[in-house]
Amino acid sequence: MTFTPTDYLPYDFANRRHIGPSPAEMKDMLEVVGAKDLDDLIADTIPANIRQKTPLDFGKAKSESELLYHMRVTASKNKVLTSLIGQGYHGTVTPPAIQRNILENPAWYTAYTPYQPEISQGRLEALLNFQTMVSDLTGLDVANASLLDEATACAEAMTMAQRISKAKVKGFFIDKNCHPQNIAVMQTRAKPLGIDIIIGDPDDLDATAVFGAIFQYPGTYGHLRDFSDPISKLHAENAIGIISADPLSLTLLKEPGAMGADIAVGSTQRFGVPVGYGGPHAAYMATKAGYARSMPGRIVGVSIDSHGNRAYRLSLQTREQHIRREKATSNVCTAQALLAVMAGFYAVFHGPRGLKAIAQRIHRKMVRLARGLEEAGFTVTPKSFFDTITVDVGPLQSAVMKSAVDEGINLRRVGDQHIGITLDELTRPDTIRSVWRAFGILNRDTDLTAEYRMPDALVRQSDYLTHPVFHMNRAETEMMRYMRRLADRDLALDRAMIPLGSCTMKLNSAAEMMPVTWREFSLLHPYCPADQAAGYHEMIDDLSAKLCEITGYDALSMQPNSGAQGEYAGLLAIAGYHAANGQSHRNICLIPMSAHGTNPASAQMVGWKVVPVKSDPNGDIDLDDFRAKADEHADNLAGCMITYPSTHGVFEETVIDVCKIVHDAGGQVYIDGANMNAMVGLSRPGDLGGDVSHLNLHKTFCIPHGGGGPGMGPIGVKSHLVPHLPGDPNGGGGAVSAAAFGSPSLLPISWAYCLMMGGDGLTQATRVAILNANYIAKRLEGAFDVLYKGPTGRVAHECIIDTRPFADSAHVTVDDIAKRLSDCGFHAPTMSWPVAGTLMIEPTESETKAELDRFCDAMLGIREEIRMIEDGKIDPENNPLKNAPHTMEDLVREWDRPYSRETGCFPAGAFRVDKYWPPVNRVDNVWGDRNLSCTCPPMEDYATAAE
Amino acid sequence: MTFTPTDYLPYDFANRRHIGPSPAEMKDMLEVVGAKDLDDLIADTIPANIRQKTPLDFGKAKSESELLYHMRVTASKNKVLTSLIGQGYHGTVTPPAIQRNILENPAWYTAYTPYQPEISQGRLEALLNFQTMVSDLTGLDVANASLLDEATACAEAMTMAQRISKAKVKGFFIDKNCHPQNIAVMQTRAKPLGIDIIIGDPDDLDATAVFGAIFQYPGTYGHLRDFSDPISKLHAENAIGIISADPLSLTLLKEPGAMGADIAVGSTQRFGVPVGYGGPHAAYMATKAGYARSMPGRIVGVSIDSHGNRAYRLSLQTREQHIRREKATSNVCTAQALLAVMAGFYAVFHGPRGLKAIAQRIHRKMVRLARGLEEAGFTVTPKSFFDTITVDVGPLQSAVMKSAVDEGINLRRVGDQHIGITLDELTRPDTIRSVWRAFGILNRDTDLTAEYRMPDALVRQSDYLTHPVFHMNRAETEMMRYMRRLADRDLALDRAMIPLGSCTMKLNSAAEMMPVTWREFSLLHPYCPADQAAGYHEMIDDLSAKLCEITGYDALSMQPNSGAQGEYAGLLAIAGYHAANGQSHRNICLIPMSAHGTNPASAQMVGWKVVPVKSDPNGDIDLDDFRAKADEHADNLAGCMITYPSTHGVFEETVIDVCKIVHDAGGQVYIDGANMNAMVGLSRPGDLGGDVSHLNLHKTFCIPHGGGGPGMGPIGVKSHLVPHLPGDPNGGGGAVSAAAFGSPSLLPISWAYCLMMGGDGLTQATRVAILNANYIAKRLEGAFDVLYKGPTGRVAHECIIDTRPFADSAHVTVDDIAKRLSDCGFHAPTMSWPVAGTLMIEPTESETKAELDRFCDAMLGIREEIRMIEDGKIDPENNPLKNAPHTMEDLVREWDRPYSRETGCFPAGAFRVDKYWPPVNRVDNVWGDRNLSCTCPPMEDYATAAE
Repeated sequence: MTFTPTDYLPYDFANRRHIGPSPAEMKDMLEVVGAKDLDDLIADTIPANIRQKTPLDFGKAKSESELLYHMRVTASKNKVLTSLIGQGYHGTVTPPAIQRNILENPAWYTAYTPYQPEISQGRLEALLNFQTMVSDLTGLDVANASLLDEATACAEAMTMAQRISKAKVKGFFIDKNCHPQNIAVMQTRAKPLGIDIIIGDPDDLDATAVFGAIFQYPGTYGHLRDFSDPISKLHAENAIGIISADPLSLTLLKEPGAMGADIAVGSTQRFGVPVGYGGPHAAYMATKAGYARSMPGRIVGVSIDSHGNRAYRLSLQTREQHIRREKATSNVCTAQALLAVMAGFYAVFHGPRGLKAIAQRIHRKMVRLARGLEEAGFTVTPKSFFDTITVDVGPLQSAVMKSAVDEGINLRRVGDQHIGITLDELTRPDTIRSVWRAFGILNRDTDLTAEYRMPDALVRQSDYLTHPVFHMNRAETEMMRYMRRLADRDLALDRAMIPLGSCTMKLNSAAEMMPVTWREFSLLHPYCPADQAAGYHEMIDDLSAKLCEITGYDALSMQPNSGAQGEYAGLLAIAGYHAANGQSHRNICLIPMSAHGTNPASAQMVGWKVVPVKSDPNGDIDLDDFRAKADEHADNLAGCMITYPSTHGVFEETVIDVCKIVHDAGGQVYIDGANMNAMVGLSRPGDLGGDVSHLNLHKTFCIPHGGGGPGMGPIGVKSHLVPHLPGDPNGGGGAVSAAAFGSPSLLPISWAYCLMMGGDGLTQATRVAILNANYIAKRLEGAFDVLYKGPTGRVAHECIIDTRPFADSAHVTVDDIAKRLSDCGFHAPTMSWPVAGTLMIEPTESETKAELDRFCDAMLGIREEIRMIEDGKIDPENNPLKNAPHTMEDLVREWDRPYSRETGCFPAGAFRVDKYWPPVNRVDNVWGDRNLSCTCPPMEDYATAAE
Repeated sequence: MTFTPTDYLPYDFANRRHIGPSPAEMKDMLEVVGAKDLDDLIADTIPANIRQKTPLDFGKAKSESELLYHMRVTASKNKVLTSLIGQGYHGTVTPPAIQRNILENPAWYTAYTPYQPEISQGRLEALLNFQTMVSDLTGLDVANASLLDEATACAEAMTMAQRISKAKVKGFFIDKNCHPQNIAVMQTRAKPLGIDIIIGDPDDLDATAVFGAIFQYPGTYGHLRDFSDPISKLHAENAIGIISADPLSLTLLKEPGAMGADIAVGSTQRFGVPVGYGGPHAAYMATKAGYARSMPGRIVGVSIDSHGNRAYRLSLQTREQHIRREKATSNVCTAQALLAVMAGFYAVFHGPRGLKAIAQRIHRKMVRLARGLEEAGFTVTPKSFFDTITVDVGPLQSAVMKSAVDEGINLRRVGDQHIGITLDELTRPDTIRSVWRAFGILNRDTDLTAEYRMPDALVRQSDYLTHPVFHMNRAETEMMRYMRRLADRDLALDRAMIPLGSCTMKLNSAAEMMPVTWREFSLLHPYCPADQAAGYHEMIDDLSAKLCEITGYDALSMQPNSGAQGEYAGLLAIAGYHAANGQSHRNICLIPMSAHGTNPASAQMVGWKVVPVKSDPNGDIDLDDFRAKADEHADNLAGCMITYPSTHGVFEETVIDVCKIVHDAGGQVYIDGANMNAMVGLSRPGDLGGDVSHLNLHKTFCIPHGGGGPGMGPIGVKSHLVPHLPGDPNGGGGAVSAAAFGSPSLLPISWAYCLMMGGDGLTQATRVAILNANYIAKRLEGAFDVLYKGPTGRVAHECIIDTRPFADSAHVTVDDIAKRLSDCGFHAPTMSWPVAGTLMIEPTESETKAELDRFCDAMLGIREEIRMIEDGKIDPENNPLKNAPHTMEDLVREWDRPYSRETGCFPAGAFRVDKYWPPVNRVDNVWGDRNLSCTCPPMEDYATAAE
């Protein structure tokens, strides 16, 4: 007897794990959409001229088991030494309960940004804890819910200072004791905005020359000083004082608010978030109440729901693109929600006394270490410090550095004759002995000392973390239940589809997530010697090569930490290219009306003027208008920014013409990679004419959204732009992030995805993403109008349905529909973007037919409820849509509604036994505040400004 | 400035993580219980004469971070080679989604045995999947929800055969091709029961001499044969045919049911459960419908709830102690629920075609490997096989074994001149090449072959896994949601206290759990060379030393896999000791009426007669009766089994007298360690007079309950019993489990607990456990009668409250109260054990004051509801107690009850926003079926039998 060939292969990750519909389900779905097979559907959907010629081929795909084996081999090439380099990155203990119940728990990591507050109360509370922690530690009134990293936070603070300062000068002062990477990123950011950077000693500050100044606290070489005086001088000149502060040091040291600082920024990495070779971790920003509306990023606030119960929500929505889009100087979109949640829980786990004890212990170890060096005759500066010292080693720098590495320790090279040492929560007595031995000191003991080496005048006087949440019972039993309760209040991918157009909420598989928390990936310092990160480099090189193959570009930079930052880095590359060709005057950027709001914001950050281009009625770029604008601005055309397939969810046939027009006029083409999930394996932006694109690894390449970050936005470029890619943040120009590879500890996720899918699998994912979207469009046909379709009636990987008619016919808004979907156990699709009054639905390839059907049933059920209003059968103001979402409390309390409890709480699509209950009723909020972050304001708003 | 000393230390795991009440809360609680301080309370509670003299001292406790560092160092001493030893243990791929969402998820691992079906529907469904899988694969009608390991399952099958066979002989036949450990454990079990074991070739079976026979399939050396003929012969003589079968092989091979087997047993380890140096994993047992009531272990069944909806529950409750307690031959209590859940999900993840493909692939690799050996001139037996072959190597056995180890491969030593090889799911082409090289074969390729080497007559003809659950969409998105939905239906420690008396549901901390899934602990084969398990041995030695110090014993065996098995092993040690002293006739065991039901069952398993001893009205042992019984049976007294503190929750002062009486009469004292959580650090059973005790590591030492297993029941003994501890299952007499150290991959949990708590912390845990119990007793005082107290009015670590009066006063049963507690978001306390109509409450030290108060509020609220019935204010048959638990459906449907929705669904103690909803109403079931497993029948039932 012989075997019959099996169609069930161990490495068949794509067909068995990642892609939702089974082959049998796909057959049924193809019938519904009216396509012979997938080939037929794709041929129908994507114009032949934009299809790629050669299929993706990455060799044989790996099984989950092979992948993990391969990852272990790669990981073992990273050497985990004890890094005492400091410079903003510190060893920290992640409480195991936080690691297991947050970082490794899909209920937290698969959640989306909490724009739908009713189904996001858990992470909103966790982020509010984070904000409260930051506000307390910095002594400032209001904090945001995190920024990308400390260096970009510094840059954001600088541009915020420019906005809020009344000083009419272009200078900005940077303390020379700032971390080098912070200086590098601020320099990058300042240049296109015409800000003049002055680096110096705070004593030499000329407050009349600047609109603001930033100081590092403690200084990068360990110095502690009170910045009250320079800040007073700044205030006298209407300039803004910023302090970039280590939050752990603030448990012992006088806080920025007490020094008069207007803004504080910093990194909360050392609050339980592993270093991860640079990220991800959460930066923070805090400011005075009066400046809250000028602060970039998201801010969680407290509100009430329709029954007057407390409810959290994102407030202010002060992101730049929203509030000052005509002169945006920030394009912040992604935050670091998951890491902010972890840092906030770290503070809850330890409370103020615990954090203080951790800081004290680090300081005492540093005092002990310093004393040992001093007693051996070394000159240690500064004399007072928190956790960092600098040692004069004369000509022996290299010898001591090497000796330290032999001891398993990385120290920091400072100038030619000094060495920096920073201790942290992980420092053990052995570590101190090893350092001593590296300096030739043997046989000392490491008893802790009670000696303080901090200036008495800088000892903190005020309380912090006084809120009860930081004083709750800290038994793990209670902590575990608190984390579970918060998780249960939220609706994430582990319970239901999140059909957010443009956000690509696909499966983040467990196998992909596992290596992230391996110590070989999580414990590396971003500035450790390169040979200790050989595994990282191998991974980055291979992933880059694969992404280049996928996109048709020649090189890739992993540095951008978010999609918006990728746009910015890409435009900087174009600007650099023009400058190198003596074409610095080129400053006009064509952007279609339908573009993502970050596009114009990014363009303005590189000092360009945005010229909007009209759309056809069917949503395509108006080619005549595009050509006319390109002609008009030909002499000054820097380039264009387009999205493909378009944000209207259509593969435009004319994309190649668009690129040619721009190139003919001397411009460069930026193709936004937000919709790459519709292209991988089928079409390559580099082939269409793109010179640069960013990739949202947190969309197409499986990095989870984490409840609003982390993200990764690497950029691919054609070879002529390679010299203009971001530089090394720790020594080199043009850095956009604090770490050379952005948030590298996330990269195992995307790499694992590519390795387990293979070229075939990746292509199949794209095809099924398109099938799933077309299936939804077809099933909703008749009940809802699908706004934009290609010439053959197909949509790409998402579809936009029009809800505007219901405003007239039934007084039903897009918001009512979104909230009613919560009753059905769904996150709403993207609302009112790119067209107001619409819903943009993107199912991704990972959803099964059953879940797609459940969603369609829910939508059709909602349409019937609308029809009942239209037909006058139910009250237009007191109906299931207006009263949505319904809570468990609604079931309990007196029911005086003109429809049944059953109708209210169990609409079509809702699970019966496993019903998800929003913990609050509709949050009282203005429409704009509830709107999605990804739904930045439509491009129409820019038309007026540019004309 | 100098530091003020901090009271917040990093290694303070006990006070900050493990122990629930904060110091401030403890102060309040001490006030309530009326004790000056903890010392005072403990002095009041535990008689001075039983207190230990020296405090526990294990040196400085470790922080979580230090612990994980230490664990890594220890783990690195285990060498992970590829083990092709087979013998019932196989490499397997744990799907990462199962690892993350089940094995590492507290919602699954902290759950209790599903005795309260309404709040256990998720794991009941998962276990039903497991049973269905086993039943399908074996071709038998009914399967249980797992047993401890294959070897004990074989022993259980043997004794079950004896019960159900009508053959009046004492012989039992064992196929010589059974795994050696299976034979060893059956031999151990047979001896005290007078069963005559006959080991031989099935061809030589004399069916007239036996009541049953067991065959291994495939045989331990790889042979495949059809056992239909020998089974026919057995049936002709009214004897029972048992097949111990590898379930993966059954996807290709003729199933036991088709051969006429009456019982099938085996291990589901290779269904995604790591080998773990021997365990834990789930064994299975299946049988014909007619024998279902004789099957040991738990069986999940389908029933309906009070509204007629489908609901799962544990059915039959056929455990030996229950149904045939007067002549019990099994004491099975713990199962391997968590591992059975994993194995069941493995089958759901792969479905029948997937499992078959995995099996085929293994077979094809084995064929390839065998062909390589044959072509090189080696003699390979058998000629047809599934995954195992035996190779004749003549005198070169040691050379090849060593050569294999050098290649990173462990092979199996068979006799003096043979080597066994078993392949598995992890086998890679490299593995095959390595094996060849070990045999001196170089440069072959490893292409798979389509050749079958299984006998055509043994190819399976029937379908299996036909139920829809094994054909659901297998996308990880869907699987993840399925696991989440099931988890959400259950109430585990991650949401609420589980105050189960005698079960010690304490915190299982994340730090303790982490090393369990490290490959250095999870991938070792139990029979690998000892030098590859140096880390394991270091851990086992240190943990054993600590447990000896805690208990006052001289040595410890980790072999017993559950508490009941520990009892059995302990009694075997006593029996062995008597025999060695020429006192084999000693066969009388005194057991107090209040003993755990496993006690008498275990005694009968070693062939002893149980003589029950009366209790005082206050629950203590009746010393006069005890002395009288000891005198009466002095000549034949084997020993006694007592529990300390007693199962009535009291520290009896007379325990030392009891031990002396037994010793004076020539007997040995078994002290049941179930209540060690009230003793650690305060009192040592070895000091009280115990000769042997078992420890429930899954109670006192933090191994999670896993929804009904795994457990660990190591025994400590005084030095004179050391020679009689369990022997090596793989070569040595007296084995009780398949692996020398039981389920060693669980031991990092208990070791971590001891290391992070330190002696002080462990002692403090005991003290707080006693405080928490006394606090509950005090708060419930007046509302409920606490049945048993010590002379000073204190209880130990648990308290029993009497609900019998309410049967008369209000027709309210203990069951009504238990179900009403589900409405409050609590698991019920232990019901009707050790006294019918009572609730035994054990809060453990890990619960906070807030949670204790929530529970007391719930109980007091229930008391008020009872009072309203007593006072005639509410209907005695239609009230919140009788209708409990209330479901969400109750809120939706027409409400025709004489109390409000609010009253019904939100009783005192229930969370509002985070309310737990049982997915079904009260399950329709007889009282006995709902009763707790730990509540084995009261000892009174034994009185008649022994007299």
